[in-house]
Amino acid sequence: MYGDGFHVYDTTLRDGAQQEGLNLSVADKLAVARHLDELGVGFIEGGWPGANPKDTEFFRRARTELNLKNAQLAAFGATRRPGLKAADDPLVAALRESEAPVVTLVAKSHDRHVELALRTTLEENLAMIRDTVSHLRAEGRRVFVDAEHFFDGFKANRAYAMEVVLTAAEAGADVVALCDTNGGMLPDELAEVVHEVVGAGARVGIHCHDDSGCAVANTLAAVKAGATHIQGCANGYGERSGNANLFTVIGNLQLKRGMRLVTDEQLAEMTRIAHAISEVTNVAPSPQQPYVGVSAFAHKAGLHASAVKVDPDLYQHIDPAQVGNDMRMLVSSMAGRASVELKGRELGYDLSGEKARKVVDKVKDLEAQGYTFEAADASFELLLREELNGERTRHFDVESWRVIVEQRPDGEVISEATVKLHAKGERIVCTGEGNGPVNALDRALRTALERLFPELARMELTDYKVRILELGGRGTGAVTRVLQETSDGEATWSTVGVDQNVIAASWQAMEDAVTYGLLRAGYEADTAGRTGE
Amino acid sequence: MYGDGFHVYDTTLRDGAQQEGLNLSVADKLAVARHLDELGVGFIEGGWPGANPKDTEFFRRARTELNLKNAQLAAFGATRRPGLKAADDPLVAALRESEAPVVTLVAKSHDRHVELALRTTLEENLAMIRDTVSHLRAEGRRVFVDAEHFFDGFKANRAYAMEVVLTAAEAGADVVALCDTNGGMLPDELAEVVHEVVGAGARVGIHCHDDSGCAVANTLAAVKAGATHIQGCANGYGERSGNANLFTVIGNLQLKRGMRLVTDEQLAEMTRIAHAISEVTNVAPSPQQPYVGVSAFAHKAGLHASAVKVDPDLYQHIDPAQVGNDMRMLVSSMAGRASVELKGRELGYDLSGEKARKVVDKVKDLEAQGYTFEAADASFELLLREELNGERTRHFDVESWRVIVEQRPDGEVISEATVKLHAKGERIVCTGEGNGPVNALDRALRTALERLFPELARMELTDYKVRILELGGRGTGAVTRVLQETSDGEATWSTVGVDQNVIAASWQAMEDAVTYGLLRAGYEADTAGRTGE
Repeated sequence: MYGDGFHVYDTTLRDGAQQEGLNLSVADKLAVARHLDELGVGFIEGGWPGANPKDTEFFRRARTELNLKNAQLAAFGATRRPGLKAADDPLVAALRESEAPVVTLVAKSHDRHVELALRTTLEENLAMIRDTVSHLRAEGRRVFVDAEHFFDGFKANRAYAMEVVLTAAEAGADVVALCDTNGGMLPDELAEVVHEVVGAGARVGIHCHDDSGCAVANTLAAVKAGATHIQGCANGYGERSGNANLFTVIGNLQLKRGMRLVTDEQLAEMTRIAHAISEVTNVAPSPQQPYVGVSAFAHKAGLHASAVKVDPDLYQHIDPAQVGNDMRMLVSSMAGRASVELKGRELGYDLSGEKARKVVDKVKDLEAQGYTFEAADASFELLLREELNGERTRHFDVESWRVIVEQRPDGEVISEATVKLHAKGERIVCTGEGNGPVNALDRALRTALERLFPELARMELTDYKVRILELGGRGTGAVTRVLQETSDGEATWSTVGVDQNVIAASWQAMEDAVTYGLLRAGYEADTAGRTGE
Repeated sequence: MYGDGFHVYDTTLRDGAQQEGLNLSVADKLAVARHLDELGVGFIEGGWPGANPKDTEFFRRARTELNLKNAQLAAFGATRRPGLKAADDPLVAALRESEAPVVTLVAKSHDRHVELALRTTLEENLAMIRDTVSHLRAEGRRVFVDAEHFFDGFKANRAYAMEVVLTAAEAGADVVALCDTNGGMLPDELAEVVHEVVGAGARVGIHCHDDSGCAVANTLAAVKAGATHIQGCANGYGERSGNANLFTVIGNLQLKRGMRLVTDEQLAEMTRIAHAISEVTNVAPSPQQPYVGVSAFAHKAGLHASAVKVDPDLYQHIDPAQVGNDMRMLVSSMAGRASVELKGRELGYDLSGEKARKVVDKVKDLEAQGYTFEAADASFELLLREELNGERTRHFDVESWRVIVEQRPDGEVISEATVKLHAKGERIVCTGEGNGPVNALDRALRTALERLFPELARMELTDYKVRILELGGRGTGAVTRVLQETSDGEATWSTVGVDQNVIAASWQAMEDAVTYGLLRAGYEADTAGRTGE
């Protein structure tokens, strides 16, 4: 919204991916980038091409597979190695070859880090910055510089830290982002330093970590002191205690400081996008996360119930609808009646007040058991149909299934599944083999049905995610949630299954996936039916 | 440490317990109070006697069962009802009868809340404060007042909000804690208000919620502006986005502001205490939590690892030992030889240059296949042993295993596993049932080995995570990664397994878990061995 006047720069795919336990495939990274683009961030840092084959691949695929509407892609890399020309450094070449329009270079700005980590002289470090920035500028790239360990460096050797910033700016860097790499700064001191650097004439950005629990406040303090470029990560992902949570920062700047970083419509998608990203990363979302957490507007204390009814604004710091969240989310994450109505309309179902309420109740009930419908559109639509029609859509009726997984004495592992079912008046028994139990079960089910429903041959399982949920507390009541994505080459749909048993949960998701696929293929009517029993 | 000059006031047992999903029994509350006392907080708010039978019971039992060494107990309650004398109000009586030396009274300070929630006049609200405070003071209690919705009230009707504070102080309240009840404040504006109230002559406390992600920074800003009483909760528990995290606040004030709130020895217990409290509350601790989280000092990036070795202080905002935490190196593809060397040293293995290189190569190779070692310390240690000893540590030798999962015609799902193995010269065949295939396999394996290795009875699977990884792109080469956590009641260790087949991957993680557990139990030697084949 600010155009180039103010940058919202996301580093989830690079610095956020440093979080312990977070591992993103190239496909995951593309999916996260699409979500961030939808939110309206200005820049998405995709990774470090050249240093990491996965990131090189990301930039290659991004050229054809990502059609960003709002954001520009940035490639992260380091200044050239000591004693080499930037033009001759293979890592700098990888940055050019990424074809990202923006390159963000990390530069050392703390004298001891130059000596101990880079093992070079302070003067050569400045030459590396000057040379690399001007080389990439000459190659037509826009260049940002991340001044690493800037605040600690400023305390240790203020003159040198400032020289790094000014060298980068003079060489053509558009922004010098001051990084609190160790995350130990507190807002007041940080603001003083930012103020001083802004006064020296450089365009200043800010990059904070949350080791003191102040990353968000530090970012706000830097903006107040004159920074016009903020870096952060979705859901506060990042190494150690995480990076500044970009969603919290956007909420604060837009709703409390009157800045328009994204459109109102984009901001109203923030809660949905935060959860969609955590489905991709497979990191359980924090219910407490400001603005977008499922508990962020949940009221437990009965103390003020009547007053809340009279004037909810007295008990909320913002209107949760502004960020796509909901005050009634205490019981259920996504099941506000308005969103169910909206969702129904989107799917072509008319849900008036009473019907919507019934669906909301059902969704709440299922969510308490571990289901989620945010990432399982097809299962949600089947649920809607069931509530509206009074019965479950069925094209087949399962009698029983069985899977055997065996590691034989020769070390080979085999998986074999048998399915017994009834469809179009026939009883069918089918066996399938696969590279795992779910695959074997999937093959057995399809083989059983393909003769009667030939369209099934076009469908394939394209993604499969498993999460263990602790519902009732540690050890007790753990269930497995399976999310499955299926495609028929034209469309893709997602289904969910929940059970103590991973195979039974997978079976549910699979059954929904096939049922939805058959609906798409035009099999409206209930064609199941047991015979002769 | 400051004595009465500065108050560290914990409200975990009252405001923290408002967190969604957090339910504390009386015994839980006593246990949490003991942990907080050990940390050295000055005041522990135990609950609202009279309003809540559980809290009445807590104060009753606390009199005999809690022998607090450092803290004083505070009972929370409200000012008397409109139109009643404080001495006649049964809820005020319950506060007296709790026998807590301190009573903290919540008072409305926002004019609209007085009218809408209390349904009384602004004048009567002041009378309620005056009457209740002086009555409890006359009864020999120390009184603190929580000025609810103070900052919103200050914005709406500054004169009235100030009048509430001064009325409480004049009636004998020792502290008036300004509450950002809706949690929407940002540090700069909050500091200005605190500064003004301090200037008016009252002793000011601060009580923050984290709805803007700034509760910690707000607390620090208030202290800088003159507040000498801070309220917060263990692990940041609390309604919506939580209360100010007391541990983060203590860490910041003590280590970065030079205040001595607790002794060095108490501070060094903070990490242990944070985790002990989360065992009681049964809320999984956040690995990212500043200062005390398991990831708070964990380094993943290989970039940093070599320099970390030279001087860890360059990469840490504090020395983790000060809060009883530890620096950890995560072994991942980002990591180079330096981090493997460091990790080896942490585990007690000497990895000189060449050995470290071999391990790095092996780790990279396995990571390319989908393994991860950053969250699988035990599997990594087994890998180190294998590289150093030239052979895999084995206590048993598996011939074959098999799992059957079946949904019967009556809908019941059963899981059954059979394991055939050789150990201590015997061939053992065992079958186990479970609520899922992995559980059945785990039971079969343990039952097979428990007679020979009785220590296995103490071990239990405490966490289990599954992730599908797309290694080579869509559809092809997908593998399943399983991370398993096992405990023997004293220690906890993590293992990893990777295979196309989820059951085979689980089996690997399970085999590593048992092998590592047997090593811990003292079974050093290789005691496996097939016989007669």
